[in-house]
Amino acid sequence: MSSSKSLRAGIVGFRGYSGQELIQILHRHHYVAGVELEHRSDSANATPLSGQTVKDLGLAVVLLATPPEASMELTAEFLEAGAKVVDLSGAFRLKTVENYSRWYKETHTAAKLLDEAAYGLPEFYRNTVRHARLVSNPGCYPTAANLAIRPLVQAGVVKLDSGIICDAKSGVSGAGRKPSMKTSFCEVTENFSAYSLLDHRHVPEVLQNSGLEESQFSFTAQLIPIDRGILETIYFRRANAADLSQIYRDAYANEPFLRIHPPGKVPDLHSVRRTNFCDIGFSEQPDGRVVVVAAIDNLVKGAAGQAVQNMNLILGFEETEGLL
Amino acid sequence: MSSSKSLRAGIVGFRGYSGQELIQILHRHHYVAGVELEHRSDSANATPLSGQTVKDLGLAVVLLATPPEASMELTAEFLEAGAKVVDLSGAFRLKTVENYSRWYKETHTAAKLLDEAAYGLPEFYRNTVRHARLVSNPGCYPTAANLAIRPLVQAGVVKLDSGIICDAKSGVSGAGRKPSMKTSFCEVTENFSAYSLLDHRHVPEVLQNSGLEESQFSFTAQLIPIDRGILETIYFRRANAADLSQIYRDAYANEPFLRIHPPGKVPDLHSVRRTNFCDIGFSEQPDGRVVVVAAIDNLVKGAAGQAVQNMNLILGFEETEGLL
Amino acid sequence: MSSSKSLRAGIVGFRGYSGQELIQILHRHHYVAGVELEHRSDSANATPLSGQTVKDLGLAVVLLATPPEASMELTAEFLEAGAKVVDLSGAFRLKTVENYSRWYKETHTAAKLLDEAAYGLPEFYRNTVRHARLVSNPGCYPTAANLAIRPLVQAGVVKLDSGIICDAKSGVSGAGRKPSMKTSFCEVTENFSAYSLLDHRHVPEVLQNSGLEESQFSFTAQLIPIDRGILETIYFRRANAADLSQIYRDAYANEPFLRIHPPGKVPDLHSVRRTNFCDIGFSEQPDGRVVVVAAIDNLVKGAAGQAVQNMNLILGFEETEGLL
Amino acid sequence: MSSSKSLRAGIVGFRGYSGQELIQILHRHHYVAGVELEHRSDSANATPLSGQTVKDLGLAVVLLATPPEASMELTAEFLEAGAKVVDLSGAFRLKTVENYSRWYKETHTAAKLLDEAAYGLPEFYRNTVRHARLVSNPGCYPTAANLAIRPLVQAGVVKLDSGIICDAKSGVSGAGRKPSMKTSFCEVTENFSAYSLLDHRHVPEVLQNSGLEESQFSFTAQLIPIDRGILETIYFRRANAADLSQIYRDAYANEPFLRIHPPGKVPDLHSVRRTNFCDIGFSEQPDGRVVVVAAIDNLVKGAAGQAVQNMNLILGFEETEGLL
Repeated sequence: MSSSKSLRAGIVGFRGYSGQELIQILHRHHYVAGVELEHRSDSANATPLSGQTVKDLGLAVVLLATPPEASMELTAEFLEAGAKVVDLSGAFRLKTVENYSRWYKETHTAAKLLDEAAYGLPEFYRNTVRHARLVSNPGCYPTAANLAIRPLVQAGVVKLDSGIICDAKSGVSGAGRKPSMKTSFCEVTENFSAYSLLDHRHVPEVLQNSGLEESQFSFTAQLIPIDRGILETIYFRRANAADLSQIYRDAYANEPFLRIHPPGKVPDLHSVRRTNFCDIGFSEQPDGRVVVVAAIDNLVKGAAGQAVQNMNLILGFEETEGLL
Repeated sequence: MSSSKSLRAGIVGFRGYSGQELIQILHRHHYVAGVELEHRSDSANATPLSGQTVKDLGLAVVLLATPPEASMELTAEFLEAGAKVVDLSGAFRLKTVENYSRWYKETHTAAKLLDEAAYGLPEFYRNTVRHARLVSNPGCYPTAANLAIRPLVQAGVVKLDSGIICDAKSGVSGAGRKPSMKTSFCEVTENFSAYSLLDHRHVPEVLQNSGLEESQFSFTAQLIPIDRGILETIYFRRANAADLSQIYRDAYANEPFLRIHPPGKVPDLHSVRRTNFCDIGFSEQPDGRVVVVAAIDNLVKGAAGQAVQNMNLILGFEETEGLL
Repeated sequence: MSSSKSLRAGIVGFRGYSGQELIQILHRHHYVAGVELEHRSDSANATPLSGQTVKDLGLAVVLLATPPEASMELTAEFLEAGAKVVDLSGAFRLKTVENYSRWYKETHTAAKLLDEAAYGLPEFYRNTVRHARLVSNPGCYPTAANLAIRPLVQAGVVKLDSGIICDAKSGVSGAGRKPSMKTSFCEVTENFSAYSLLDHRHVPEVLQNSGLEESQFSFTAQLIPIDRGILETIYFRRANAADLSQIYRDAYANEPFLRIHPPGKVPDLHSVRRTNFCDIGFSEQPDGRVVVVAAIDNLVKGAAGQAVQNMNLILGFEETEGLL
Repeated sequence: MSSSKSLRAGIVGFRGYSGQELIQILHRHHYVAGVELEHRSDSANATPLSGQTVKDLGLAVVLLATPPEASMELTAEFLEAGAKVVDLSGAFRLKTVENYSRWYKETHTAAKLLDEAAYGLPEFYRNTVRHARLVSNPGCYPTAANLAIRPLVQAGVVKLDSGIICDAKSGVSGAGRKPSMKTSFCEVTENFSAYSLLDHRHVPEVLQNSGLEESQFSFTAQLIPIDRGILETIYFRRANAADLSQIYRDAYANEPFLRIHPPGKVPDLHSVRRTNFCDIGFSEQPDGRVVVVAAIDNLVKGAAGQAVQNMNLILGFEETEGLL
């Protein structure tokens, strides 16, 4: 952390994979220094985090790489103490407590912040994010899905009654750092497995932002034996003959982190590894069947990179600072 | 190869991954000994294979783990010399030369054998296979796809105008043993990539056997960084409320190599690794969306195991001999 | 478990990797059926295992795939009830309680069984094992190390004052099935790490069986990002010009599970994967430097396979039954 | 390549793994822009590279990520045209043509440049490199080996008659990008293999720089199923009681890319992945046995990173520019 950096960002949950990635990205940031904050659950005799922490350390922003329960508990105090907050958990992504209870199977304990939280997908909500105190960083799967799907739905090119299929695959770091049988080396290597078939908790984020209804969107998550990366293979049938390349070009003109491949070419995970890019490509048949492939690094554009992108927006820095 | 084995099976292409798997399976077979046959393309000064080979070595059957061109060249002579043939290539899977030319991008040179070739998916065509001289062993992807899809289509439970999506993933051995950039370690590891989007040459095998039309079936192949295994995630919308478990139970009662999971449970690749099983599971939503997951080992049920299953049928052995 | 099998073997610790391997191997055994025994620590309300279990279930032998503490607790009772015991833990491998305390950092609670326990490396102690009630199955690393080193030491070809180096590498299953940070996928993949440098608890097993003194044997264990397999690279300087191939041939004539490569050729892990073989090769320079490479599958020859080999010996079956 | 960069570096062999890494590192360099040069062997109708290329493009330096034959062919012309050359091949590492012929099994065709070539291990030869026209970038294995071993040998702490053992392990990118059976995914995954036992062509680089005699240094190379990284486990016996930490601290005080671990702690490959660091740690026993572990990224400190470090030295930039 160079002493010439003018602002400080607190990082809660810095030992997890997203937290570690935040630290690395902020090392490359010219203006913001990362400060590791010891959350009380991490250590018995640490001082509890509070608004006072923000004041004592002079934090301009706090980045929460924590589970939703911790984010719901900490956010209000940090905001009141004058810091901006970018929350990487699912706590503030859904717009209603009912929706939260349904998908996260627990009660929301910070409901009054839901209205205020800006959904931090800059490609769609850049101006809202710029003026927000609280930014809810999108889930890894919905980041790729919304970037690939929303322009198509909005352009009316999707035959909605046939639905959109999103077959998603993720590297193991998406499951977090805590050891479990599911993420144990011998269980993952030489394997490939599907989970949360049609009912993953990231589904409502896609519905909320793309305008799709639940019955129109089929989503399955799957585990690839690699450490990082998300590739989503998306299928739909055309409602009309609109030019797909043009739809994407119109949606993402001048976007620094979106790369659209020429027709017939699709990205793989090496294309986006350790970058904040979302790469999108597609292939189609004359009978109207289309397949779109979207790829991101789940720890960068799917988590820490996008969080810094949002942080840059709310602090008034160049959006790409630290990310190229 | 125990001397007590009563019959001999020639193996052409024994150095490839399917050929090696054939050798291993036949080691466990009580009645048939494998004999490695040196194809002339493998070695400059070897005696060319011919009908005489069959007679000299007393081969009851020849297993061709060769490219289609070699299979088209060798099959007729072996049959005339009195051997049965199980061909693992794509040479005899499609029913017309037109279809072959379209998907394999080359002319068929053994067209008169197409009518005679039995499609070796025993779960559907067991009786035809039993009486065939020439069995065309199915492709790896179509084996899983047809086993998962055909009972559903035949039961009328699939809403055909919305189509069926088959998002397929394969281990690297499916690409064969010849070194290439595509299968090079550093290109595959920590990667995941899609290829042959909507136009893989295995598509017509699924259409031909399931009764689907091309516009109703969207198929994408993808490479997992593992050595073996195919997992297919299949999406469709229900046309009626028929019981899916019952459909599969009716289709596969007493099948030795099909295992249907209880509703809501799906297989992973460890479930079927190094076995001849095809495992199938599904999950569904009340609004009619269904996802089916089918898993096989591409070198066993997807190639060598199924070839031995077919060999057992044409030679009159127990179908499971050497395979459990 | 076929009903035609005449004897039953209890398996304690059947959920671990070695336990699962025992179940698979016994499935292929013609005479012994495996019976899964629920150890009380596995389940709160299960009946505790005891000598009565042996009598109730008619167990000829109990295979303990348990931690040392459980083995020390259970063995005496099983023996008294009339079963033979093959213990896969480290509980009975070392000959003195002092040595056990030093290397395992805990007190031995079944000291009176130490004298009786036969060290189950059949290639060296076959006749002792045949007459034992209690067989202590060797550690995975010492199995390969002793098989590679002991014939050389006994033949006097090793320059002892320069010492023997054993640089050992193991797949992750060697660390057991319990999830931990050390065996978590993201920590292991794309990594390689050394641990227990010069003081691994398997060292005294090598000293005890090879005749080396501690200062003559340098051992380091390392983790390869694969699921199974141990490869040991062993270095020494020659004390004389004896023919190494001949030394190994003399030591292992007629051994069913030892394969000695020709000079200059060494095995890799694919050579022994999922087999009970120990493969050994070497390369040397005219100035007397020698490198030996030994490879085994840590779950087979390094654990469950060797346990069944020992079980076969104590029950009077062909030593290779179920293992080829 | 930013237009504000003041100098240009030509890269020959830019499609290989080292070449790609050079491009990435130079992207981060503030003063030197990388220029991809099409070597004539890469493309039939390209203009052959020559001294004229240097003049036409204004190249201050040429980085050769080529096989030795190409480096021997191109270097003289580039030098004469006024460029500095950093050669990543083995062409100029050994000091005599006899040594080159012995280890590389071919005749040296640019013998008169051997005297001039500076061996580019900056930690030992920084001042020589600074004034060189031609820098021979060390091999990946010798970089780690020399950094770990030379200070020990020079301090006299190694008992030379017992020898030093270097058991080296490398990721697959060390074998280059050209597809081969040896680097094919299915051959490498779930495997671990040794090659070039005691006679790897990198051995003489270690002898030449450490002062060891051939009979005192045993080296084996091994392939880990990962893409990048070298870990070397080094064994020796002490000749005296000198403090090893102090030896390393004295040797590497103020070195920007050397990190010495505290006694008993050793690095793994994640420690150095995608960095130009060489991490060194050790563990020892009271009887004088020592094991040292050294880790580098073979494509960075073992190739492209060190090449840029050398380039910085010969061009007069801060040695760490582009590398931290």
